[in-house]
Order: sequence, then C-alpha cells, then structure tokens
Amino acid sequence: MLLQASIDWNLCVHVLDPDADAPCRHLCTQFTVGSLTDYDTVYRFGRAVDVLTIEIERVNVDALEALEREGKRVYPQPSVIRTIQDKRLQKQFYRAHNLPTADFILTDNRADVAQVAADFFPAFHKLGRDGYDGRGVQRIRSVADAEKAFDAPGVLEQAVDFEKELAVIVARNERGEVQTFPTVEMVFHPEHNLVEYLFAPADISPTVEQRAQEIARQTADAFGIVGLLAVELFLDKQGNVLINEVAPRPHNSGHHTIRANVTSQFEQHWRAILNLPLGNTSAYQPAAMVNLLGEDGHTGPAVYEGLDTLLALSGVFPFLYGKAITKPFRKMGHVTVMDTDLERLREKVAQVKAGIRVIT
Amino acid sequence: MLLQASIDWNLCVHVLDPDADAPCRHLCTQFTVGSLTDYDTVYRFGRAVDVLTIEIERVNVDALEALEREGKRVYPQPSVIRTIQDKRLQKQFYRAHNLPTADFILTDNRADVAQVAADFFPAFHKLGRDGYDGRGVQRIRSVADAEKAFDAPGVLEQAVDFEKELAVIVARNERGEVQTFPTVEMVFHPEHNLVEYLFAPADISPTVEQRAQEIARQTADAFGIVGLLAVELFLDKQGNVLINEVAPRPHNSGHHTIRANVTSQFEQHWRAILNLPLGNTSAYQPAAMVNLLGEDGHTGPAVYEGLDTLLALSGVFPFLYGKAITKPFRKMGHVTVMDTDLERLREKVAQVKAGIRVIT
Repeated sequence: MLLQASIDWNLCVHVLDPDADAPCRHLCTQFTVGSLTDYDTVYRFGRAVDVLTIEIERVNVDALEALEREGKRVYPQPSVIRTIQDKRLQKQFYRAHNLPTADFILTDNRADVAQVAADFFPAFHKLGRDGYDGRGVQRIRSVADAEKAFDAPGVLEQAVDFEKELAVIVARNERGEVQTFPTVEMVFHPEHNLVEYLFAPADISPTVEQRAQEIARQTADAFGIVGLLAVELFLDKQGNVLINEVAPRPHNSGHHTIRANVTSQFEQHWRAILNLPLGNTSAYQPAAMVNLLGEDGHTGPAVYEGLDTLLALSGVFPFLYGKAITKPFRKMGHVTVMDTDLERLREKVAQVKAGIRVIT
Repeated sequence: MLLQASIDWNLCVHVLDPDADAPCRHLCTQFTVGSLTDYDTVYRFGRAVDVLTIEIERVNVDALEALEREGKRVYPQPSVIRTIQDKRLQKQFYRAHNLPTADFILTDNRADVAQVAADFFPAFHKLGRDGYDGRGVQRIRSVADAEKAFDAPGVLEQAVDFEKELAVIVARNERGEVQTFPTVEMVFHPEHNLVEYLFAPADISPTVEQRAQEIARQTADAFGIVGLLAVELFLDKQGNVLINEVAPRPHNSGHHTIRANVTSQFEQHWRAILNLPLGNTSAYQPAAMVNLLGEDGHTGPAVYEGLDTLLALSGVFPFLYGKAITKPFRKMGHVTVMDTDLERLREKVAQVKAGIRVIT
C-alpha cells in the first residue's frame, strides 16, 4: 500500500524483503531479497538509496545507525526504532517523558515475575524484544500464574481495565510539522490479539478525543520522529487515556484512510520522510475496517469466498494482500467500509464479516 | 493508474508496451516490450493471459479478433475497437443507431472536400485512422480552405457552435449492467486541442445532465461494449447534446474519479472486464482536474517546479506520470483538486495553474 501510494508521484522505490515471493516484488523499481536483520545486507541496501524507511521494526538498527552517521536520511530514525523494538526501553521512555502509560516492572527472567507483589496483578508479561501481533505477550492473572511468564528479559505491565482501545496515527516531518489523523476505535479478536475491526471516528467524548490527540502529538514530539507513528491507546473505566504501545510506521489502524480520508496514512508517510508539507487528514465519511483473517482450519493456497457479493455493496472496498498461502488468523487483507450513516455502516460491517471468508 | 487500481485486488497483470522505458514497467507482474500494431506480437501476448484489455485504440485488431475467435475474453471487444479506431466507421455507427452527432460527409481525398457545398462549412476534416490528441484534425472554415484537408480517406464534420464540451464515462459489464459517472465539463487548450482542465460535475441544467447520461448509456448499449466507454459530447447553443467522439478505455476526463468518486474509472474498468458488479460512481465532493502539460520551449529531462507549494494546499493531488522527457504540451501528469465549495475550488484551480510548471 505504501508502494501503491508512491505511484502518484512516480517515486523510485527499492524494496528489501526476505521473501523472494513477497507480493510487492512486482510493484517497485528494484526488489532485493535479503534479511532485514543482517547488518551487511541492510547496510549495502541502504547505501544505494537517498532516503531509507522501514515497514517493520525488526530490522538491523546497527546498520541503520551506521548509515545515519554517514549522512544518509534514515526515517524513522534508528534511535526511535531501537527504543520501540524493545518493549522495556519503550515503557521507560514513556515514564521518562511523563507520557501516561500503565504501571510496569522490568523483569530479567521468570523468577523475577514470581517475586512481584500480589496486588500488582492481573498483568501482562511481555518479552522485551521480538514480540509481534500477539506473540511474546502472556496474560498473568495472579502471582500463582507466574510460571507462564517468559524466562527472558521482559516487562510486566499492570493490566488496564479498559473501556475501549483507541489509536491515533500521527505524522511528523523534518521541519517538525505534526499532523494527527482522527482517533479510531479498535475491536480486537477475543483470542488472537489481532485487530478484528475498527471504527473511524471512535465513539468517544470530545474530551477523550482531545486527550488522545494531545498524547499522540506529545509522543511524536518526544521521539522527535520523522515519519508516521501509530499510537495505540487504552481508554480506562475512569476516563484516563494511556499509551499501550506505538509503531513507527504505517499501521493496520490507518488502512481505512486510503479511501476515507483526504490524505492516506501511506501518502502521509511519504510526505513526512521526504520533508514535504503534511496533508489534510480529515475524513470524507465515517469508515470501518474489517481485517480479513485466514479462516480457522484452512492452510494452503488462498481462496476469497464471497468477494463478488461484497463488491455489489456500495462503499465496500476489499484490499487483498496477495499472500499465496492462507493460515488460520493470518492477515490476508482488509475491507474498508464507508457510509454517511452510522447505522448503515454497522450493518454493512456485519454483512462483510458474515459474507467473506479466506479459505483453501 | 489502471495498474495502481489493480493492486487493491492483487490482480496479476501483464503489460505489452512498445517503450522499454515505459513508466509502468516496474508496476506489473510481467512487462513485455513490443509493438501494439504487430499481429504476431499482440497475438502471442494475448495467448498467455485470461482477459485482454487495451489502453489505446491503435492496436492490431486482427490479432484481437483471432484471440476472440479462440475463446479468449477480449474487452473492449475487437469489433468495438475497429469501429472506434476509424472515425468514418464511428460516425456511420452513430447515424445507424440514431445517436445524435454533428452532420458529416465521408471523403476519400482532398478533392472530395473541395466538392462539398459551401453552406456545409465551417467544418472539421478528420483523418479516418490514426488521429490522436488533435493530430489528424483540420479546421476548414470555408470551401476556399479545402486545400488544408487531408488527401486520404476521412470524414468532414460540420462544426458545432458549442456552448460547452461535456464528457460522460460509462461502464458496461458482461452481464449487461450499465453505470455512468456524473457528467463533467472539459475546457480545451485554445491551440493544442488537449483538455486543459475539467470540472466535475458540469455546470449544466438537470435536463442537459439527464440527456448526456441517457446518450452515454444508449451509446454503450449500442456498442454492447464490455469495459469503459468515454463519451465526449457537445452542448450546442440550442441546448442539443451531440456526440463528438468516444474512447473505449479509461480517459483523461475521468482522472479526477481516483480521488473524488466512490469508485474510480480505473477500478470500474476492472470491474467491467472481470464481470464483477459495477461500483457506485457518486462523488464525495466537487472536483477539478488540471492537466500538467510540458511548458512551451522546454524539451528534455522533466522538472516539476512548484510541487512543494501545491502539496501544502488541502485537497490538491498531483499525479506525475513518470515520463522522463518533457516536450511542449506533452501530458506529463495531472492535478486533481477537490473542495466542497465551488468558489474555493476555482481559486485552487487558478493557484494550481499558476503555481506548477513542467520544465527542464
């Protein structure tokens, strides 16, 4: 989708991807197969481009730092990626910058978790590094559950009794201009810790909206990031807004902006890292986004059942990611749904969720 | 732009283009360099795909017909392309189907034009074949001007004293569903017969709007086309709507639909030729489109002057086509401008026209 947005301005984009069959291989000026975590691979790749960006945080930051030292424009900056790719550093960063987040304790191993006072629980134990989309997170209900904790450096976060999960995508360019997208509301799959669907704008009070937007701006400024920052937030039962975690890149919570907003998150990322003026983020219509997850029990070449019926609905836009193989709960695409009327929007979301399946 | 739209659904697209440096070469699954007018090249290319479509009418129709006979889905159908690529056949088609168009006389050579009765003029002499973007058209004010006529088979069309030039893009799919886009108003460059800018919707009465839409539908049905048909129309001083000419493909008069309409003309073309339900064509906001033409006096590697300033305006979307070399009046891109307020829309169009230049 980032490449798709780059076509408007005829940008010359080189892609480094470990998968020789990556769906983007036919959509860029140059495609290189290689490991994102290998120093030499990332360094050599970065030498050949004018501006370097990322779409996943698990990347060799040492190589990015070397390139930055040599004067290469690397956005988001390696220091930002380094902080974000380690959940321990990320949480300490919030604390150091007085950014609101759930209370936490750093742990070096499983035994540390068992030592924590009983009244700290329920909590989540998160691996410091290499967690992604629900992997590397373990719910610990009470100290008796401590055996479930990871036996590796991690962070124990107090569970937030939340009302809603929100997200704000914020962009910041080289000249320090900051622009936020309207706050969205995410509904997670009960078991798989993946965004199941999303509504934009979030159904929240103006006070909460203002607070969420303010926190997103403050977080982007604290990082001094150049590029996009997706700020995932909890709205707790007391009306407090707390940062859950952030991602320094285009994010699932902004996919609806391709159709629903004046500027999409992808175009905004290009604007930010190329030091262009940031675009207007306002929405044309309320929107929802439904993730297309691989159906449980189906592993193999993907078939999208029900697509024809969906395409007959007005304001329903499927996006298929071109992954050849579907697996249970794998993100295979998403559907953006738009309507001026919120009731009809909800009805269409229900139709989409009931009408399409990714099977084999 | 057709490829860009194909990415949403992860379509596998092979492209045949005579230019080895065509901007689309990095944006498709497979890129083949070859002549579109060579029988063998087109035939071999077509054998390898499931559905074959075109983006320019000057293509070897014999090869397309051979493929169609073998059962290949070729959309638009070769018979439609054959009729449209010859202006003589095109005009006869309108007459045979009672579709309104300016009066005309078929001519075999220059001498035929000189024989025409004096009261038929002013008129335009058009080459039967191979005219494009103003080439192959000659204004003949009076019979005394007949020496300017082409000495080749052509058609002499009575000049229409028009109020406005309009266009309607219409789509028709295999199952015969027909869907039109709202009528737009085109303003041509006074000298170069290229669309200079366009407003959507057209500033016309509901009666004229209805008539334009009706003619577009009737024309699509008369051709039985599968795919997009751009119908260019004259609104004459008496309020009559007449067909000027048609193009069986995505068209310059529909470029604004990428941003301004629920379904873009490009997505609609895919829907039509893949026999999917046609999409909603309504607009989110009024829009204008400004063609970015190469500045007079500049030939060489293209530089887009003023882009940064344009990007600071809200609802202004430049599209650069990636052609390496600019030439005077070459189409180098376009800018879509949107606003809910028509006065502000016109102001922004003026800013765009004054603010950007394609130079060397």
